[in-house]
Amino acid sequence: MNQDTLGFIKDSIKSIPDYPKAGIIFRDVTSLVENGPAFSATIDLLAERFKDAGFTKVAGTEARGFIFGAPLAKALGLGFILVRKPNKLPRKTIEQSYKLEYGTDILQIHVDAVDAGDKVLIVDDLLATGGTVAATVSLIRQLGGIVEEAAFVISLPDLGGEAVLKNLNVNITKLVDFDGE
Amino acid sequence: MNQDTLGFIKDSIKSIPDYPKAGIIFRDVTSLVENGPAFSATIDLLAERFKDAGFTKVAGTEARGFIFGAPLAKALGLGFILVRKPNKLPRKTIEQSYKLEYGTDILQIHVDAVDAGDKVLIVDDLLATGGTVAATVSLIRQLGGIVEEAAFVISLPDLGGEAVLKNLNVNITKLVDFDGE
Repeated sequence: MNQDTLGFIKDSIKSIPDYPKAGIIFRDVTSLVENGPAFSATIDLLAERFKDAGFTKVAGTEARGFIFGAPLAKALGLGFILVRKPNKLPRKTIEQSYKLEYGTDILQIHVDAVDAGDKVLIVDDLLATGGTVAATVSLIRQLGGIVEEAAFVISLPDLGGEAVLKNLNVNITKLVDFDGE
Repeated sequence: MNQDTLGFIKDSIKSIPDYPKAGIIFRDVTSLVENGPAFSATIDLLAERFKDAGFTKVAGTEARGFIFGAPLAKALGLGFILVRKPNKLPRKTIEQSYKLEYGTDILQIHVDAVDAGDKVLIVDDLLATGGTVAATVSLIRQLGGIVEEAAFVISLPDLGGEAVLKNLNVNITKLVDFDGE
């Protein structure tokens, strides 16, 4: 992918020290989204990467995953699968719990959102520990969907999510790394 | 707008009787989003409608507003402004409360997401009572943005939201009506 464009995208991401708590540098993808040229370039890069890859659906996790997943689904001409917190989806769902730093959380998916054999591209803004994306992979595979690829605008490799996805046999596309910076 | 395309979009929206409670027919926009051709047609219609209208930003409200607002922002080459529930946005925000059937809720926006004079198009999946969109109009206007237009995939005119927006001098574009059906 074009290094100048990737640098432009990275520069549009503001870093917020000590958020949400002391010692953490928060990488703020909303500043990218608010920037029209950076947002367009991000979706264009991902669409170019995946346009001939044979995917049949795109999936994204509430809520920031919707911001990148929905435009990418549109760019590829595919349906977009919503993965949401409990009690948000109106039809029949299955669910998957996953661990947080303290406690657990749950994600749900419509049972009829994935057809057996669907080749599903997962998209999210940021890969950190990989908990939500691993739960999303599990939900799609439970419904007979094929998941071999996940795309992220930002990855924080120090937090272990890349290893989690490798163990699930999911390839990663990432536009921007913040690795020990 | 093309009536065949609008009919195709409307037919992709499943109706769920007695959800979330008895007597309510829930109009399920997720079935449209999961349908690639219907989702693409929806974004294309909105982009065609607004491409020469001079907007400088698109705004959408968490979470379903992101699903239509972000692809429309991308299609128009504009930045996308996130309007979110409390404690979700990392930089400095202002907030606006609004009434629910029981109680109140709050929406927030980054203070630097809108520049004075920005011409902002608000996008959401569904116009019902108009509470969230009225709060969104207020937030953008407090920051000096100009709001004259809001676009919805679905409107339920019986619930009063269209009158609320008219009182705020906001024009409405809607693709699909479910009026007393």
